[in-house]
Formats: sequence, structure tokens, C-alpha cells
Amino acid sequence: MQKFFYPQSVAVVGVSAKPDNLARGILNNLLEFGYQGKIHLVGPRGGQVYNMPIHPRLEDLPEPVEVAAILTPARYVPEAVEACGKLGITRLVVESGGFSEVGESGRVLEDRVKTLLQQYNLRLIGPNGLGLINLEIGLALPFSHLRPKPRRGNVSIIAQSGGVGLHLLAWMGREGLGLNKFLSLGNKLNVAENETLAYFLEDPGTEAIYLYLEGTTDGRELLEMGRRARKPVFLHHANVGPETAGIALSHTASLATDEHVLEAACRQGGIRRITSQAEFLVGAKMAGQPPVKGSRLVVLSRSGGEAVITAYACRKWGFELPTLSPRLRRLIETRSRSGVIKPTNPIDLGDIFDFTVYSDVIAAICQDPEVDGVLLNFGPIAEEERTEAHKMARRSVELAREAGKPLAITVICTLDEEEFFLEELQVPIFHFPGEAVRAMAYSRFFAQKGEVRPAAAPPRLDIDKISAFLEGTPSGEFLTLPKAMALVEAAGIPLPGWEAAATPEGAAAAAEALGFPVVLKLSAPSLVHKTEAGGVLLNLKDAAQVREGFARLAGAAREHLAPDEPWEVVVMAQAAPGREVLLGARRDRAFGPVVAFGTGGIETEVMEDAALRVAPIDEAEARAQIAETRMGRVLAGFRGQPSADLAALSRALTALSHLMLQFPRIEEVDLNPVRAFPGQEGILALDARIKVG
Amino acid sequence: MQKFFYPQSVAVVGVSAKPDNLARGILNNLLEFGYQGKIHLVGPRGGQVYNMPIHPRLEDLPEPVEVAAILTPARYVPEAVEACGKLGITRLVVESGGFSEVGESGRVLEDRVKTLLQQYNLRLIGPNGLGLINLEIGLALPFSHLRPKPRRGNVSIIAQSGGVGLHLLAWMGREGLGLNKFLSLGNKLNVAENETLAYFLEDPGTEAIYLYLEGTTDGRELLEMGRRARKPVFLHHANVGPETAGIALSHTASLATDEHVLEAACRQGGIRRITSQAEFLVGAKMAGQPPVKGSRLVVLSRSGGEAVITAYACRKWGFELPTLSPRLRRLIETRSRSGVIKPTNPIDLGDIFDFTVYSDVIAAICQDPEVDGVLLNFGPIAEEERTEAHKMARRSVELAREAGKPLAITVICTLDEEEFFLEELQVPIFHFPGEAVRAMAYSRFFAQKGEVRPAAAPPRLDIDKISAFLEGTPSGEFLTLPKAMALVEAAGIPLPGWEAAATPEGAAAAAEALGFPVVLKLSAPSLVHKTEAGGVLLNLKDAAQVREGFARLAGAAREHLAPDEPWEVVVMAQAAPGREVLLGARRDRAFGPVVAFGTGGIETEVMEDAALRVAPIDEAEARAQIAETRMGRVLAGFRGQPSADLAALSRALTALSHLMLQFPRIEEVDLNPVRAFPGQEGILALDARIKVG
Repeated sequence: MQKFFYPQSVAVVGVSAKPDNLARGILNNLLEFGYQGKIHLVGPRGGQVYNMPIHPRLEDLPEPVEVAAILTPARYVPEAVEACGKLGITRLVVESGGFSEVGESGRVLEDRVKTLLQQYNLRLIGPNGLGLINLEIGLALPFSHLRPKPRRGNVSIIAQSGGVGLHLLAWMGREGLGLNKFLSLGNKLNVAENETLAYFLEDPGTEAIYLYLEGTTDGRELLEMGRRARKPVFLHHANVGPETAGIALSHTASLATDEHVLEAACRQGGIRRITSQAEFLVGAKMAGQPPVKGSRLVVLSRSGGEAVITAYACRKWGFELPTLSPRLRRLIETRSRSGVIKPTNPIDLGDIFDFTVYSDVIAAICQDPEVDGVLLNFGPIAEEERTEAHKMARRSVELAREAGKPLAITVICTLDEEEFFLEELQVPIFHFPGEAVRAMAYSRFFAQKGEVRPAAAPPRLDIDKISAFLEGTPSGEFLTLPKAMALVEAAGIPLPGWEAAATPEGAAAAAEALGFPVVLKLSAPSLVHKTEAGGVLLNLKDAAQVREGFARLAGAAREHLAPDEPWEVVVMAQAAPGREVLLGARRDRAFGPVVAFGTGGIETEVMEDAALRVAPIDEAEARAQIAETRMGRVLAGFRGQPSADLAALSRALTALSHLMLQFPRIEEVDLNPVRAFPGQEGILALDARIKVG
Repeated sequence: MQKFFYPQSVAVVGVSAKPDNLARGILNNLLEFGYQGKIHLVGPRGGQVYNMPIHPRLEDLPEPVEVAAILTPARYVPEAVEACGKLGITRLVVESGGFSEVGESGRVLEDRVKTLLQQYNLRLIGPNGLGLINLEIGLALPFSHLRPKPRRGNVSIIAQSGGVGLHLLAWMGREGLGLNKFLSLGNKLNVAENETLAYFLEDPGTEAIYLYLEGTTDGRELLEMGRRARKPVFLHHANVGPETAGIALSHTASLATDEHVLEAACRQGGIRRITSQAEFLVGAKMAGQPPVKGSRLVVLSRSGGEAVITAYACRKWGFELPTLSPRLRRLIETRSRSGVIKPTNPIDLGDIFDFTVYSDVIAAICQDPEVDGVLLNFGPIAEEERTEAHKMARRSVELAREAGKPLAITVICTLDEEEFFLEELQVPIFHFPGEAVRAMAYSRFFAQKGEVRPAAAPPRLDIDKISAFLEGTPSGEFLTLPKAMALVEAAGIPLPGWEAAATPEGAAAAAEALGFPVVLKLSAPSLVHKTEAGGVLLNLKDAAQVREGFARLAGAAREHLAPDEPWEVVVMAQAAPGREVLLGARRDRAFGPVVAFGTGGIETEVMEDAALRVAPIDEAEARAQIAETRMGRVLAGFRGQPSADLAALSRALTALSHLMLQFPRIEEVDLNPVRAFPGQEGILALDARIKVG
């Protein structure tokens, strides 16, 4: 990536002297941003632009270049790529559209380009994107006019949609945020987000990263990179449902992601998920500041009402407004001679017109180790206070910087004061206190991510046994109930004693061996909801009831199944009463296997109480997963109730996650219900559904 | 209120020639905004300002005035008020601080003013506020400098904090939103929010209302006004928890409100609750447009990525993006000769450079009765497209207006285009598509409020009987269990058969009469959590078990109660198994009695599954309340399960709401659990706690 971002020379391919030539926009940007390297132009019609010659072919260039920026009609792209390959130009930026996003014809073109990339060992950004920008050397390859001209700063952007990236960039300029590097991924034919992200995470000029995606190339890797990142990464991934799927497919040929999985993966990976560029604008404003390490904030406000609003936002984002330290209270009482300021938090400075009081209070707060961040609502100021107020603001920013304390300033009422901060102090400010608090919360999210914990050793799974159970079931079908139950047991997840039975007598004998009462279950490939079909009989207390039950299940089979569908009956020892939970696993297109924990039983869907994790997890992670749910809080014991065996549940979830990882043929596992017993050890999976992919 | 907002003459009281005189700010604003009435100045030192004489006393005025705007030190306010009273000036605006918000001394001053208001029959706005503005006649009474100068428009503001109101006002100017009237409530000594709201709801110049409160004067009335309002009302009430309580008390002497109740009340009242001025800025942009009557939107976007983001926002806010009608699809296919535009929704117009295509498509969409609103992402445009793009934008706005179709425009990438919309078209625009969709959702919220349904006749309560049960219990204490149960029965809510018993033999006899099995409950004033104290015995099957149970409860009483605390035992027929729900009621400081429905049993707190309503409700409202909860969905029947008696539950909730309204002494009612029986009629309250206020 370094070669893409720091080339000494660039060829712009597709330039002509015609006024509506799009590639000339690339040249315009390079000139406007003062690109420090050499620029060459290529275009079949030749001629010249701004007194620079247009070479008809890449082969005609007077010297080799490091990057070729190509914006020709799509059908000419393969030959340009081939020419680059032959000339040893290894870094290509293709902005032309008309590839896989338009359908079959474009896909064919893309395949040809792909082959050439392999043949010549080339790297390519795009196609169907806006290329890249590196303001450190004035490299600006988008063909569209960038206005307002971006400031140089510490934010880098990876955008799968050029338009989305440019819109953010325009707003960053307005909000006093500076750009470092920009990369528009387009169709991600070759260079994709993870490689770029890895580069930005190491790039000294980048302090915050915005990532807009319409599809992930390797979600699991992205998550791992997020986990290790020591810079804030914000992921804006809007293509998460049927509403966006169609348009995203035709826009960047991306497939939609499951939003619940995306949310879980971002939490797991310490990546902040956002749903609008506006959220990034808020978060990025804290990027240059020390991290918010805890939840204790102090609020200073020139308006009592805005102080109330700030305190409300603190509550919503889980911040505390601790009582001020005795030292601070004394200071405020001393400095506020008439007792106009109350030493509360928020501190309402509405009636203070001596701005040195503000600075002194802020100085003291910044020195207080019990304070994790400072919020200042600045304004309103009368014309004659302006000079003093600006001095105070400058001093406050310096004080916070020296003390390493995060400071978020909101300009209230006098909006023309924003300019002072943006232009003179070069400090981004917030427009409403709620935004300042949100930015503090984002900073805390990244600061509290913690070190990457080495994962515990994975559980041992009996590979041979599990493989054997999977054999013989065709793709897209479910394992039979006995096979599924045996597989789950082989993964180390306990079930009550059970046996399959083919006849009433066999069932009765099995029940005698297991001990009464027992449960009978009808098992057949097409039977998804056993209970609704009358396929589960509980509490059978003797052999006669079991025989009779078998007959009833045979009747249910006749009623609900096709005549030739095989079925069997499973006899299972009836478990003691307890709490019913759900353990599940499935494969997500973007993030691979995920495991779920939640309220089980037939109410699973109504309860909307499930937590997800991307696999694999260890038991500590499983514990956290369980604790996220209401059922987890019930099982942990509440109001004097005993707790259930959370360790056994965590082991089972962990095993499930590794099962999915080690057996790619398993598409889906659904253990519902799994019973847990408050006050007792152990858990028992009462049912198992496993789908083979 | 009309007299306050449309006076023919104003006296500014507290003016002096000194440069730091605050009251002069009022004069400056009146002059700057071109107040159409007469202005007189009053100040004890006399002199003149801008060649206008300052009269030492109100009595010296050359003619009577209609409004006095007073900004003197607080201690002089009572005499100014008295002078107004004597002179027949009935409308006073007091901006001075130093009243109840600073504590006891201020409260004394306020009381004196209050007495004078009654004595002379005066109306007063404030104190401790910024007065009022009416841009229709250039009346601007705040003392602080208003910059940027507000535009005139259709938004009116009621703010309990002047700072919060001014901050919004400054932002409205920036966002192209115009002000009609502004009122800063301050301490609400006399004029409060409801009276002002009622006036704005009738005011022809006002089309959208922003209401910032730190405390409600009469929440129930506010809710009723909201219900009847035919204009959008946004309530920003941030003082809802311990974090804000302190600062709000010292700011405007307001008491905090319960956030859950506030949320419920706003939903009930068709008032949109917001938590930031920024949310109002978004919502108010649709105020001048036809309402969004349904959920079917069409998106047109110049950027594919922004189309994805827009579609995501539609999903989040519950909008559909229906397939385009055959007519529209044909039109798009015909107009887009090369097939560049796909007739999907969102429509990606990224590659269309002929803007008449946009206008034609928008024209057709506006005529489609199946479309409830149109979202347009405008931009990016190259310099040479500008004229045509502006024509298209102007035409689109006209088309939507003519067709009565709501149209939300987001300017993407080319932010300098915003000015064209704000200044030339005078149309507010959105900055991000998510904001446009949110504004559509707010508009739909108000549009779908529906007519005010006449409430059904309240249930008849046995007033005498209930009053008798309440007698004799001191304030702050709980009714005894037998009294509480009897009261609940008198309110028409069924319980299982029960009897109080004082001896083991009495208990056994009662059980025989009720029928086995029975439940025994220990009842004593101090016993809040009976179950935890071992005070509930279930499933007693014969007289011997009941006698033994009585002895165990006597033991529990010895263990848990003070030696002299009276206790008794209640014998209750054991109800059949079923679902446990909670029915509750309490008094909210702001909104009066509220009723709660949710998951019951000991898990109530963990389940976080409760819905609230402000009393009184009728059975239809109770049904809606129940349906809001997960337990409600369970009881309604799911996955083939039978439903419980929702009518009986609704009747009970309705009765509870009227009980609270008719018996102000009842502070709190807690019926937990109430058992409902899927597949069977009836409900049974198994426990009752009633606190007397």
C-alpha cells in the first residue's frame, strides 16, 4: 500500500483535450493539491492539456511511472492493464465504472482484468471507485472536483462508495476535521478493505479511521484487526437488510450482511459501528485528544438549561457526574466571591462574567486524577466579553492538553464563535452538548477495549466420531434426531439418557432401562416443529403409557408426514424442571460461524432475548455473552434465587463455537431447549437440530 | 396571551445610560427588529439613550402602555409590579434573575410578586427568563443580542431556559428555519407552558412548536392538549433523573420527572418527545409540507452509496420502499434510453446527466397515489451542470407542492449547493439522508395520530366500600393484606376465594370451606417481600398441612417481625397454573396517576417488560398497553398457543386507572402476580399491596 500512497510519479490514463473529459478532473486535482511527484498524461487522441503533452499510449511515456490512474471506458481497461503489466507499472487505480456492478458483461471484463493482474503480479484499486488521496504529498486521484478543499489532518477514510466518502470529506472540512488519506474501494476487485485498514493502522499520519462498506471481504479478519487496533476504527456498513440489498448489489456488487451479527462482531472487535457519516463527524472530533479512560466527567456550562441537557446526555451514555472534590469546591467558593457559582457538577457559570474564574476552575479540574474528562458549554458572550472569552478558551485548551485530559467544547447560542475555534485555535467543536457527550462515549469505548486476551485452549472434540455422524446426510438436510443428539454428545454437551426405538415394545424396554418418567419424541427429516405436530409426549410414567404413546406418535407420523418418509421415535429420560435456554450456531456470510445464547423454549421468538458472538469463543467470552441476556441475569441468581451452572453453559457454548469452526459442513445447530437447573450443577440439552450445508 | 404578543406599546423598565446596562439590550432588539408599536423607557437615573428620554418612574410615562418589560435587580421588581398594577399595565415581562432559583430569599420575593399579581389581576411572564419575541410585529424583548438575526417563519418556541431557546434560534437561522413567536418561561411564576401552548396551537402564524421544559406544571393537561393538537408539538424535557435534578432545581426551580412516564405520556398525547434541539431542527424542516400519511417512500439518489444509506434509514424508521408502479417503470425505461437507470426503488440516478429525466420521474412519482413521500439525494454536480440542476430542483419542489406530496431533499457532496436551496428556493434541506428519513417519520407520527376517540364510560366503583377500606390506615403505610384484597375486589378485580385467619384451627376451617389445595400468606405492615421471608406456603392439601403451615408462618413472624408488630394469616384457594403478570399503579409528580402492565412474578425487575399509561384509560387503551409488552404478545397467543383473557386484563387495568383517579389517598397499588390462563376465561389477582398517601 505504501507504493500506492507515496508514488514519485503518476500517469493519468484516459485524458483528452475535450472539455467534458472526466480524466482531466484527476489532473485538475493533482495540480490543485500540489502533488509533489511527476505527472504524465495518456490518451489515445494525444494533444495537450495545460501545456502538458498527452501521450497516445502508455508505452510512449518518457520514463517509467509508479502509479497509473485509469479512467477510460470500461472496455479499454484490460488493454491499459496489460500495458502497465508489460511496462512494470505495478500499482493501478481504476476509476471507470461498467464492471460487475452492471451485470454479466461487466463481470466478464472484470475476470479478464483479474487474470492480467495475476499474470503480471499487479495490484489494483477499484474499478468503479474514486481512487485515492494522500494529502501528505498532495496526491489526489479522484476525478470529481473536491470542494471545499479538504484540510490536512489526522483522519483517514476507506469508502466502498466514492460518493459517501466525498460527502463525508466535504463535511469534515466544514467541521474542522482534517484528512490524511482517502481510499475509494469501488468493486474491490483486488485491493480490499482489510489490507487498507492494516496499512492505516500502521500509518503514522492516521489517528482515526472511517470505513464505509457495502459488503465485507473477510469479516472475521476485520474483527481480529479491530481487536488489535490501537486507533479508533468506525465502521459504517448500511447494507444489512432486504431494503438495501438490491441497490447495493447494483451499486458495488455487494451482498447484504445480517445486522445482529454485524453488531455483535463490532462489539467483539472493538470497532465502533455507526449508521451515518454524521456519527463519525462527532466521534472524530475527539481523535486528536487523550482517551477518555473512565466515566467520571465534569460539566461547566454558561447556560443552566444547556447544563441540564448535558447532564441528561451523560446519563444516557452511562457517565457519572461525581461530586466535586473538596479542593475544587473550595476553589470555586473562593473564586466566586458572591457565592454566585454553586460548587455542583454540572457547574453553572451563567452568571460569571470574569473569565479567569473559568480558566482557574478548568485548571483545577484538569489536575484532578478523579476526573476522566471535561465538558465545556461555551457562550453566550456579549461583544465586549469576546477578547477575554477567547483568552479563556485558548487557555482551557492548553490546560487540558498539558494535563492530558480530554476536553469537549460545545459552542452555544453564539454560533459565530465557532469560527474562532475552527480557524484560530484549530480545535473542532460540538454544536450540541449531546454530541460532545457521545464523542466522549466513543472515546471511552476505544479506551476501554483492553489488551487482547490470549484465548484459552479450545476444547477437544472427537473429530472421527463427529465426522462419522455427518456422513451420509445430503447437503441442505437435517441430521436425524438420533444422529444430531449423538453428535452433540460427542461435542461434550450433555443430554439426558436416550435411546431410539422402532417399535412400541422397543420403546417400552428403553424406557424401563432409562427409568420413568420418560419423554417420547417423533423424529423425521421434514418435521421442524415437533411440538406443534403433536410429536412430543411428556411425563410417560410406565411401560403401558410408553406403548400407547408410541402408537400416538405413529398416528402423528401418518397425519403429518408423506407416506414414504422414514420416521423413528426417541425415548428420553425426562429431565427435572428448570430454566429453558437456547444454544444455537449458524454461518454468517460475512463473519463466518456465530453462536447464539438466549431464552429458550417455544417463547424464544417472542422474548427477543438473544446474544450473539462470532466463533470461536472461549469460556470467558461465553460468560460475557450469557450475561448480556435477561435470561443470563435470571440464571446468575437474583432476589435471593440460586444461580444455575453458568460454567457448564459456557463450556457448551464454547464447544459449539469450535464445532462450527472445525466442521465446515455443519450449517446450523439449534439446541432448544437446553435446560439449566437453578441451585444445581449441570445442564441438559433436550433437543438438537443440525443442518448440513 | 394575544395582549402579550401583539401590544401597541411597550415600556422597557430598568434602562440606564450606562454602557453595561442590560435592559438596553431589550431596546436594541426592539429597534433592530423594527417593532411596529411605541417604545418608552423607564430607569431611576433618568437621562436618555439614542435620543429617547428615560423616565425615572413608570408613573412618569406620557401615555399608558400595554406591556412592561422589566429588567431591574430582583429586589426592585415588586415595586415595579405594583406600579404597573396601579397604572393598569396588565402584561408584565420580568427578565430579572434572583428569585426562587437562588433559594429562600428569592422565594420570598416571588411570593410578594405573586400577591401583587392577584391583587391587581396582572399576568406575568418570567421571572428569570428572556421574555418573548413576535417577529410578525418586530417585538423582541430578550435582553441578549440575537445573532444571527432570526428569519421570520412558521416555528414557535416555548422555552423554560432562555439559553436553550436562543441556541435553537441561532441554529434555526443557519438551517433555513424561520421563527414566528418565542416565549421564555423562566420560573413560570404566573404564565406557564400549557397556556402558551394553547395560544400557539390556535395562532395562525405557528405551524410547528418546540417546547423545552425542566418541569411540567400540569402534565395531564399537556397530554390532553397534545392529543387534540393538529400541529406538530415537540417536547424537549431533559430533567428526568438524578443527574439533572440538582442543576435544574437551581436553574429554574423545577423538579425532575420520571422518564418512563414522560415517554408514555408523550406517546399517549401524540407529542413527539426529543432529547436535543438538533432533533427539532430535523423535524421542523417538514413543518411547512403536507403530512406523511403512510409508510411508502420512493428514493431518488445521485449516489448509489447514499441510496444504500437512505434505504437503511427507511428500514430503521419503519418505512417501505415499494416496487415502482408499472407506469413509473415504463417511464424510467423510456426516458433512460441506454437502460442506465434501473427501475428499482431506490432509484440510482448517478449516471444520468440529463436533469429533465429527474424532473420527469419526480413528476410521475408525485402523481402516484401509492407513494406517501419522496426522498431526493441531490448532488454531486459539476460546475457546468449547475444551471440545469437548479432548474430541476426548483421544478421538483414545485411539482411536489402542486401534488401535495412531501419531498425531503438531502444535499450530498457539494455542500455549497445548500445555499441555493436556503436562499434562492427558501426550502430547508437535510445534510444526511438519515435525517431526511427521520423527519419523514416525525411527520408520519403526527399525521397518524388520528382523531381523539371519545373515552368509553368509566367502570362503576363502589365508592363507599372502598372509602371504608382506606379509613384508619395512616399516610405512608400499606393497607393490611385483607383490606387490600377486599379493596381490589370492590374495584371489580377478581381474586381467588380467601379468608383471614387468626388461629391454626380457623385457618383449617377456612381452607375446608374454600376447598383444597390452598395457599397461606403471612400479612404484616412491615413485610414487603413475603416470599423471601418464607411468608408464603403453597399447595397445602389438607387441614393438617394447613395447621402445620400456620405454625410455620407464626415462626416466620417471630423471626422477621418486631415483637409488637401485629400479623395475621390469609388462607387463599390455590389458583390453577397460568401466566403471571403485573398490574400496578402509582402517582407521578408530573403526570398524576399512571398504570403499569408487564411480566409479573419475582422476575418482574429482570424482565424489563412493562408498559405505562397515564390514567384514566379505557379498555381499548388498556389493550394497546398490554400489546406493547412481550408478555402481551405471549398472552395473545403465538405459534398455535391459546390466548388468555385479554378483555378481563383490560377491564382490570381500566378499573385500576379509575380507582387512582377517584381515590387520591391511594398512593400505589401493586397486584403481582395476577394470573392469566391461556385458553381459559378470567384472571385472578393473587396478591395485593396498596400504599396510602
